[in-house]
Amino acid sequence: MYCLTITTDKWSDRKYRSWRRLLEDLEIGYLDTELLPLLVLVNRDVDLYTTSSCSGRVVVMDSEYPWEREETGIVFKTHNPIKPSDLEFIYSKPVYKRLWIVVSGPIIHIYSRSFKLASTILNTARRVGFKHSGVMHYSKNTGLFIELVTGIYIAQLARTRDEVIIEQTKIAKLVDVVNNTLLEGKKRLEALYVELSKILPRKKDPLIEGDLKTRGFQAIINPRSYSRLINNS
Amino acid sequence: MYCLTITTDKWSDRKYRSWRRLLEDLEIGYLDTELLPLLVLVNRDVDLYTTSSCSGRVVVMDSEYPWEREETGIVFKTHNPIKPSDLEFIYSKPVYKRLWIVVSGPIIHIYSRSFKLASTILNTARRVGFKHSGVMHYSKNTGLFIELVTGIYIAQLARTRDEVIIEQTKIAKLVDVVNNTLLEGKKRLEALYVELSKILPRKKDPLIEGDLKTRGFQAIINPRSYSRLINNS
Repeated sequence: MYCLTITTDKWSDRKYRSWRRLLEDLEIGYLDTELLPLLVLVNRDVDLYTTSSCSGRVVVMDSEYPWEREETGIVFKTHNPIKPSDLEFIYSKPVYKRLWIVVSGPIIHIYSRSFKLASTILNTARRVGFKHSGVMHYSKNTGLFIELVTGIYIAQLARTRDEVIIEQTKIAKLVDVVNNTLLEGKKRLEALYVELSKILPRKKDPLIEGDLKTRGFQAIINPRSYSRLINNS
Repeated sequence: MYCLTITTDKWSDRKYRSWRRLLEDLEIGYLDTELLPLLVLVNRDVDLYTTSSCSGRVVVMDSEYPWEREETGIVFKTHNPIKPSDLEFIYSKPVYKRLWIVVSGPIIHIYSRSFKLASTILNTARRVGFKHSGVMHYSKNTGLFIELVTGIYIAQLARTRDEVIIEQTKIAKLVDVVNNTLLEGKKRLEALYVELSKILPRKKDPLIEGDLKTRGFQAIINPRSYSRLINNS
């Protein structure tokens, strides 16, 4: 038999620090706003909070391999669809290692102090296409750290130091595929929001509810606002 | 407080069914043999067993997107390095949807009936480059289902129905990158074996030990055999 007791006070402290950071990021325009309704929804539950997440993105990296994580390798980044002209720089700038066009779907990070709720969220997420979701870490201090992630991913070698792999004339076609890939991610993000809004918040967090009222977040609490937010972006 | 009791009898039944399937797959040549030492190592622990795993592979898929899972879309598959001539067919065969060259690193699936051991394995795996490892599922019946996975992944659009995205003249250069990617996965697989062999088997499974003796698996139990196996492949 295995028992896990989450130290409630410390966990809650961590939650409110994380929540305040989210609000700060929102104020300075640093937050990926397509995520906002989902992040608010999750944080409204007293047993959950979110950390750094992403609604899906297109990145051009100058690195040996596309899975390297040094931010210094990123030479272009956006969460929105691109135009072929956005990638013109690939053919004019010098290449240090290799240029990769990388498209990835949404990634949502959630801490849960409830095993049952974490399991419900994982099953829901998998059902709407977040098929690689799982518990990345668990401990008495932090609870369960879960990552909701799809298999949506393309990593395309465009240039090496001495050779062009994808000719500039092919970029328009590739950009179609890149944008549709990004869109597929956004669709699953919306489906995740819709499904999670049926079960969350299971037990409201009074501190978060207070904050939402004070700050006039009513529009974001309304589930219908989500697809509007996405379609307007 | 959350407690999880694994129903030991059912869990063990499932383990031995899975172990016998592994032995059958090995006999009929269906098993990815580069995985064998690692799979044996994990199964020797009484609290663990493995299910379908992969040492890393190169696949060509004819599908809308590279993350689609229908096996029907796979037109080429190997666990070994490739030659440029292996991909010549890309330019001669008709394309139904899109042709993607996909390289993925190793994926290991393990059931654990111990929370503590699962956590130790996850931390060890992450340390040797299986950075996306996590618990995919947990329940009283099955225990914890963990997936050890790296971020090693390339998905390259080669052709659409009406356009060649990567010209045939670029294939030799691309194949270099493909093979190095595959190799990077095999290196991490070996590192995983080396590190896990320091902690496993924590408590030997007498049924598996008996089987190994009967079948003359001594070479595979010896940790030194692993890099030899890989280098000879």
